[in-house]
Formats: sequence, C-alpha cells, structure tokens
Amino acid sequence: MSEIIELARRARVASYALAEASRATKDAALHAMAAALRENTDTIVAANAKDVAAARDAGTPESTVDRLALNPARVDAMAAGLEQLAGLTDPVGEVVRGYTLPNGLELRQVRVPFGVVGIIYEARPNVTADAAGICLKSGNAVLLRGSSSAAASNEAIVAVLRGAAEATGLPADVVQGVPTDRAAVKELMQARGLVDVLIPRGGAGLIQTVVSESTVPVIETGVGNCHVYVDADADLELALKILLNAKTQRPSVCNATESLLVHASVADEFLAAALPALAEAGVTVHGDPAVVAAGKDVVAAGKDVVAATEEDFGTEYNSLDLSAAVVESLEAAVQHIRRYGSGHTDAIITRSQAAARRFTTAVDSAAVVVNASTRFTDGGEFGFGAEIGISTQKLHARGPMGLPEMTSTKYVVTGEGQIRT
Amino acid sequence: MSEIIELARRARVASYALAEASRATKDAALHAMAAALRENTDTIVAANAKDVAAARDAGTPESTVDRLALNPARVDAMAAGLEQLAGLTDPVGEVVRGYTLPNGLELRQVRVPFGVVGIIYEARPNVTADAAGICLKSGNAVLLRGSSSAAASNEAIVAVLRGAAEATGLPADVVQGVPTDRAAVKELMQARGLVDVLIPRGGAGLIQTVVSESTVPVIETGVGNCHVYVDADADLELALKILLNAKTQRPSVCNATESLLVHASVADEFLAAALPALAEAGVTVHGDPAVVAAGKDVVAAGKDVVAATEEDFGTEYNSLDLSAAVVESLEAAVQHIRRYGSGHTDAIITRSQAAARRFTTAVDSAAVVVNASTRFTDGGEFGFGAEIGISTQKLHARGPMGLPEMTSTKYVVTGEGQIRT
Repeated sequence: MSEIIELARRARVASYALAEASRATKDAALHAMAAALRENTDTIVAANAKDVAAARDAGTPESTVDRLALNPARVDAMAAGLEQLAGLTDPVGEVVRGYTLPNGLELRQVRVPFGVVGIIYEARPNVTADAAGICLKSGNAVLLRGSSSAAASNEAIVAVLRGAAEATGLPADVVQGVPTDRAAVKELMQARGLVDVLIPRGGAGLIQTVVSESTVPVIETGVGNCHVYVDADADLELALKILLNAKTQRPSVCNATESLLVHASVADEFLAAALPALAEAGVTVHGDPAVVAAGKDVVAAGKDVVAATEEDFGTEYNSLDLSAAVVESLEAAVQHIRRYGSGHTDAIITRSQAAARRFTTAVDSAAVVVNASTRFTDGGEFGFGAEIGISTQKLHARGPMGLPEMTSTKYVVTGEGQIRT
Repeated sequence: MSEIIELARRARVASYALAEASRATKDAALHAMAAALRENTDTIVAANAKDVAAARDAGTPESTVDRLALNPARVDAMAAGLEQLAGLTDPVGEVVRGYTLPNGLELRQVRVPFGVVGIIYEARPNVTADAAGICLKSGNAVLLRGSSSAAASNEAIVAVLRGAAEATGLPADVVQGVPTDRAAVKELMQARGLVDVLIPRGGAGLIQTVVSESTVPVIETGVGNCHVYVDADADLELALKILLNAKTQRPSVCNATESLLVHASVADEFLAAALPALAEAGVTVHGDPAVVAAGKDVVAAGKDVVAATEEDFGTEYNSLDLSAAVVESLEAAVQHIRRYGSGHTDAIITRSQAAARRFTTAVDSAAVVVNASTRFTDGGEFGFGAEIGISTQKLHARGPMGLPEMTSTKYVVTGEGQIRT
C-alpha cells in the first residue's frame, strides 16, 4: 500500500472519532493547539528559518520569501486564529430542514462533516494551522499538502498540532502532513473514496492542475478577474472612490478589481478624473481605443494609458494593472463580463434601481455588488468568522466558504414501523 | 467547432434567458409541454415502436424492453409529471441567508440556477421529459444524453418539448438532445466551463464511467447497498415486517435493502421467523456461516440459505437476493456497514433510544433510518414533489435531490459607497 493511501486510511479512521466529538472537545483541542503553537514558537521559527534560507539560496523573489517567513508575531497570529475558531458555532448537528411526513415519519436533514478533506496549497505556512483548525472545528480529518519550499515549517507546525490534538483525547491523525513530492500529490488527487473533498488554495496554475487531474471531488477557489462597471447613472465621485479602493487597497488578492467598464455616456467625464487618479496611485491602465484616447490629454507624461490586447481583458493581474473599456450600454457591460469574467466578484456603480436590479440578475458571479468595493468578498467581511477559501464554482459552495460550507448533510428518518405500500 | 461544443454554447445562451424567466413563464412552459406531449402521443408512441422493435431484434431482455416501451398511458404520465412540477415552488430567488454587515452592506445569499446541466441516462424515455421539466423549473438549460436504444423516442419527445418551450416565449435551446455516439459523450464529459454539472442516472457502470472520465463537476447518484440492522433491543415482529418490505416491495430500485445484519443475542429467534418468510417471498439469502446454520432446520427443502462470499456483502443485487450476517454488537454492525455499504440508506430496528442515537450518529450514509423501511429514501416520499436522482456523494447534495438541489447561490451585496480600509 502506498504511503498516501495509508495516510488517507488513517485519516478516515480518525475522522470517525472526530465526527462524533462534541463541540467542547473540539474547542478544547483548538485552544490546546493555540497554546502549543505559542509554547513551540522557537522550534517553529527555527524550522522556518531553514526554509527561508533555502528559498533565498534558490533566488526566490523577496515577496515570496515574505509570505514564507515566520516570526514570533506571526506564530502568535496563527494561535489567535485557532482561538477565534473555538468561539464560532459548531456547524455539525445543525438541522437544515425537518418536518413530519404524512405517514408519521420524522425527517431531519442534519449537517455532518465530509470526513476526510485534502488541502493543497502554496508556500504560506500559516495556512497549515488555519486549514487544520477549520477542518477540525467542522469535524473533518485533514491531509495537508503544502509546498516543498515550506516543508520544514509545515512539518514543525503539524507536529505541534498533532501533539495538542492527542493531548485533548482526539486521534493525532485528525491532522496529517502529506509528502511534497509530485507522485504523492498525484496519488492524493486519485484517492477517490478515501478522500472526500480536495480544496486547492493558491494560484491559477495550481488550481487548474488539481481540477483537471483529480478524480476526488474538488472545490475550485480563488481566481478573480473582478470588474467595476460605472453605469450611466453612477455617482461619479463615489465610483472613483470605489474603483481606487477595489484596485489599489491590496492588488495581490483575488477580490481586487482587474477591469473597469465605463458607460459611454459618462466615459469622458469619469475617465478625465479617474485616469489621472489611477496614474497617481501607480496603476497602469490597459485601455481599449476609447480609453487610450481619453487618456491622451489627462495623464502626466510617462503615465500614458497602454493599448489593451484581447488577452488583457481576461487577465487576473494581481498587480497595479487595470484593463479598461468603454461600453455602449449596461447590456454590453454584462456581455463583456460574461465573456471575460471569472465569476468571482463584479460590481456596478449606479443610482438607478432598475440598473442595479438588472446587473445583479444578469451577472452570474459568486458575488455581485452594488455601490461598494469588490474587496468585500471575504469570509471575514461577510461575517463568517473563518474562511477556507473563496469558491468560484457553482457546485456545493460559491463565494467565501466558512464552516457550514465544510460540511455535508445526512437525512435522519425516525419511524415506528412504517413500510412502503 | 465540434457539435457538442456548439450545443453547449447554445445551451449557455438559452440559460441566460431561462435564468431570468419568471415562475409564471416557466410554469406556462411546463403546461404547454404537457399539453404538447398529449397532443403528440401518436407520434411519440410510433417513434418509440421503432426503438422497441430494434431492441427486440437485438435480443434485449423483456424487462429492459418494458422500461423502454411507451404507450398512451405512459405518455400521459409524463405530461402529468410536468404539470405537477408547475405546481411546485420556484427555488430560484430564494434568499438562503441574509443580514446587514456592521459597515451597512446588505448581504443576501440568493438561489440561482447552475446554468447548463447535462443528464446522461439509460433506456427510459420518460426520463427525457422528467429531467427536462426539473431543469426548466429550476432555471437550467439541459443537455439530454439518453441511450442509443431510445434514440427515436427521445428525439420525438425533445422535438415536442422544444416546440412547446418556444411557443411560450422561451428559447427552444433550453432543451437539447445530445448525439448518442461515444465520441459525443466523451466531449460532453470534458466540456468544463461550458457545462456546469453532469448528472448520470442509471446503473453502477454508467455512473463509474462518468465519475472517472468527467472534468465537468459530477453529482453521483443512485448506487444503493442498503442495510437493515436488527438490534438486540428490536421488536422482532416489526423488524420482520420492515425487512420484508425493504427487500421485496420493489427489489430493482436503489433504496431496496440488499443486506441484513442481526445482533447475535436475537439471531436465533429472528432468523427462525425471518428465513422461512424470506424463502416464502422468493428471496434467496446469502448468509454467513451463522445464518447458514440457522437456516438448516427452518426453511423448506430447496430453499436453503446459500453461503455468502466476501463479494456478496458488497453487492447491490437489485433482485430477490439478500446477503445476511450475524454481528456480535451494534459496533460490529456499524463496522460492517462502513466496510461494505455504499452510503445510500441504512436502517436500524430497535426500541433502544441509545442504540438509535449511536447508529444514526456513527453510520455515515445519505439516509439513516430508525424503525422504518429503507424504501422511503425518495424525493416523492420525502415531500420534495420532484426528484432528479438520489445523490450518494457528499458534495453539494446528498440523498434525494429536489428542485433546490438543482441550484447554486450567489451573494448580492448592496451598499452606498463602502470601501475596505
């Protein structure tokens, strides 16, 4: 038996105990894990230092090294995250619906854990504690497959979490690390029946690989080519404030805006204000001919609008770049978003009730926003208290995934001898 | 562009109109479809006669021919099914949750259609109308890929349904048939992004193929190796009544019981009554050594209990066969179900509250039943009014799938200029 199959079987056995654990037990484990992380800060930071040194030796960009690096404050933040999870409602056992059937059978649909969840992620070691905590609270045993560049950090963190789980009376195998070689991840993606769900967290390439190679059901997360559409009836000052926030407040994340659409009737006025403000904020605009023309006279030398290619409109930049086009109508904006969007978050800025209603109905994205920044599509902002990722697929969960999204349901049917006739 | 890609693109376009159609429009289309089926009964039955003749020529078993055959009464039943759908609540637009965030953003999670659904099914032409109706009511454009053996019937039915949809003002392409060749189904399974969900309906082989070859998200349906466990504290008369119903009332369906487990402390008494009754009902029991021994003296000559193989316990017979074993404890019954069950429906017969609670907690199946027949796991019986299949997977939907299970959700976020700080 391969190592992955063996890990998955152990996860399955552990999942039976975890599924029946009370909220009190799970919360005690989360608190024990948090305390253990803090106690072992030196060990974790020392292990991480090896990963960081290896990354620097390999010429890794400093921004990636920063995501990889841990210090006592970051370990403390991981611990605090686990404690926060302990304070959230347990999704397991929630009765989603229930009634008595005409024949007297009592029907209840009840939330239950998936069982075994696999998380495949990139070089952020804080995801290790975060994902382990969310899976534990939702009653799922977890197989954590992090990046090889964070292997020493993840190994140290997983060892600490396992010890704390065991000390609370849960099986250590509720949390397991998975070897980082390619063969192991391939096997993990083929472990249908042993692993209930795989969740990839990371860039588009990682997600695409998992989606296309996995026979285990996958929840696709996180690719965001988000749009702001400035309607004919928009408050243009409000539109600019929102656009700047959506593009520049944190450009590297999936809910940052990547594309601006402006209704032709307000394009001249809006672009005359927006293009200099975007240039000032360091944003490179990739515009269609109308936007390029509008930029000619309004931005300072060296900050010209660049001509957009077809590819630009389908690109998630994750940087201070923005594609931009003028559209003839709200319908044209909808068509553009259907063609180029990724179904993450799209916003309309308008004072028109009819336009808002039409946009929110016609745009089929995980989140459609009226008169606010796209940056709000987030489990924390939505009030979920925790988030394992943002689903951009339509099956099971769509948008920010909190604890309830980490569960399945079962029907419990109670009778007194009913038979079918 | 291949034919399937072209069909899927047309379905996508049609899905935009259908997603915005009011309940009134959709219900009018369902009534028009029902009326058109009735008006075209002769055409449909004549087309079906060709399929039936071809099936008989090919030496198809008569039970399969019966599932394939249509007559005026069966066409009328298809029409009545569509009319019944018109009477059900529209799932689209339901607000699943909603509240106002601390910053004043109004958050609503709203049910929306998937978009384009593919159904892959076997030689029952009534599924064509049934699946088309459920998809239409839930706002989804459908690609119907039936069996080649029902091609003439399906073509006739699809033509009638498309005509009726168009007459109501919906695009005809909300319902489309898919060619039945293997190349076409392969392309359908690879049309990720164009098709949102695939639902296979049929035998284990079909479902396995779709699950393993599809990159489109799949909802797995219908394989049922269902158990009845007779507990130490069972009312044995009640247990026998339920067992006979669960096994024999309709043995060909997925919620029929395939395996009996009996607690050792009541095995002698229960089996002494159950084995003759099962034999009387025409059931062949495949027993473990204890059940074989119990059968020695109690059943009539020629109706002996057969020795079960390991394979028997994992088999969905769909016939008047039953595997049976004596277990030493409730825990052993749970272990047995975890090992051999398919996660469809499993029942305990007991007077003990503790045993019922332990069984319903520990057995992780779509439905767990206390003191009733396994045959109740069904959309109609559960009060859903319609059913597209019974999901045995954990992602998205589990158990009978009604109209809400044929939808996704989106978040609609309404503000007045909120930005993230």
